[in-house]
Amino acid sequence: MRMSQLAQEAGLPTATVKYYLREGLLHEGRLTSPTQAHYDETHVERLRLIRALVGPAGQSIASTRRILAAIADPPSELDLLGIAHDAVTPRYPAELPTDRARQVVEGLGWNSAHCAPSTLGALQEALDGLEAGGFELSDETLERYASAMMVVAADEIAEIPTDSAEAAARFVILGTVLVEPLLLALRRLAQQTASAQRFSGSRQSG
Amino acid sequence: MRMSQLAQEAGLPTATVKYYLREGLLHEGRLTSPTQAHYDETHVERLRLIRALVGPAGQSIASTRRILAAIADPPSELDLLGIAHDAVTPRYPAELPTDRARQVVEGLGWNSAHCAPSTLGALQEALDGLEAGGFELSDETLERYASAMMVVAADEIAEIPTDSAEAAARFVILGTVLVEPLLLALRRLAQQTASAQRFSGSRQSG
Repeated sequence: MRMSQLAQEAGLPTATVKYYLREGLLHEGRLTSPTQAHYDETHVERLRLIRALVGPAGQSIASTRRILAAIADPPSELDLLGIAHDAVTPRYPAELPTDRARQVVEGLGWNSAHCAPSTLGALQEALDGLEAGGFELSDETLERYASAMMVVAADEIAEIPTDSAEAAARFVILGTVLVEPLLLALRRLAQQTASAQRFSGSRQSG
Repeated sequence: MRMSQLAQEAGLPTATVKYYLREGLLHEGRLTSPTQAHYDETHVERLRLIRALVGPAGQSIASTRRILAAIADPPSELDLLGIAHDAVTPRYPAELPTDRARQVVEGLGWNSAHCAPSTLGALQEALDGLEAGGFELSDETLERYASAMMVVAADEIAEIPTDSAEAAARFVILGTVLVEPLLLALRRLAQQTASAQRFSGSRQSG
């Protein structure tokens, strides 16, 4: 198909498709003449993935490029998680002290030596944010959050496919960046549901 | 204290403090002369809260203003959740079709009539993103995520203080925007921990 049809199939303006081509996020089409290229289903699929990453998952162009590169040329399983997690937490400087984060992780019975520095940085920043906001979190609440997340994570890791490195990369990376917005939406909907039960009144409908 | 000391106490450049004053996020100090104002602990605390909101919680200035206004002048409990959730999901147009999101919510045994349209929009976008990325999520997995989030949410709602409207607003709003980064960091750390157990090898340290 031609560029205009590709754009239509992917539900994007032609200018956006050209931008992704220039940025190297989308692979070149097959040249059918010096000024015309032919695109196929792989281009449509790739554009859908790019849309998902820069849209709901809120990834930058640079981060999307890293993610796509990691899927195309996957490292080992352990490093995959590191790349997926670095993609979603790229902004923690190595010099950020993470003593409290390490302490929390060890307190949960997890081994902080298995944790990526950038993720420990993210935890530290979240804990600092709660403290700055005057939001006290008891150890009990923290453990409740952690065990809910471990229930989810243990199944996710058990399901990583091992038949091909590309399948594993796709699963881990997209499972990180695309599932995070889902989890947050579900938490908010669960809160709204629980709230309607506790403060039952005007909005109750049956 | 004077502006320069306030900035130092809050760990912010003076220019940033002046910016928050101009934007109306920080309340004015008490004028001690036509050109000089006096600031107190309430200003320091407010600045710490603003830092947490625009930093780890990733809120925009406009969203931070809405959040601070809702804390200062709190609506009823049910509306509080709506405001907190709208603050973190401000970008879903009302015309976005949310049929699939409603179907998922009802499938979980929750009542979609109790759910905020913006949150249903966020769920819909997350589901669309997963589909666009070719990431299939079984009903079983979706239920597992939802029940983990309900375990967390039910306790959170049960803990909303009812002694003062301001305390309730603070708890609900900050519990939404400041706890989300914590949950995501804990999920990633749980994945890294579970991954080290499944693919035990080079990084095992004891």
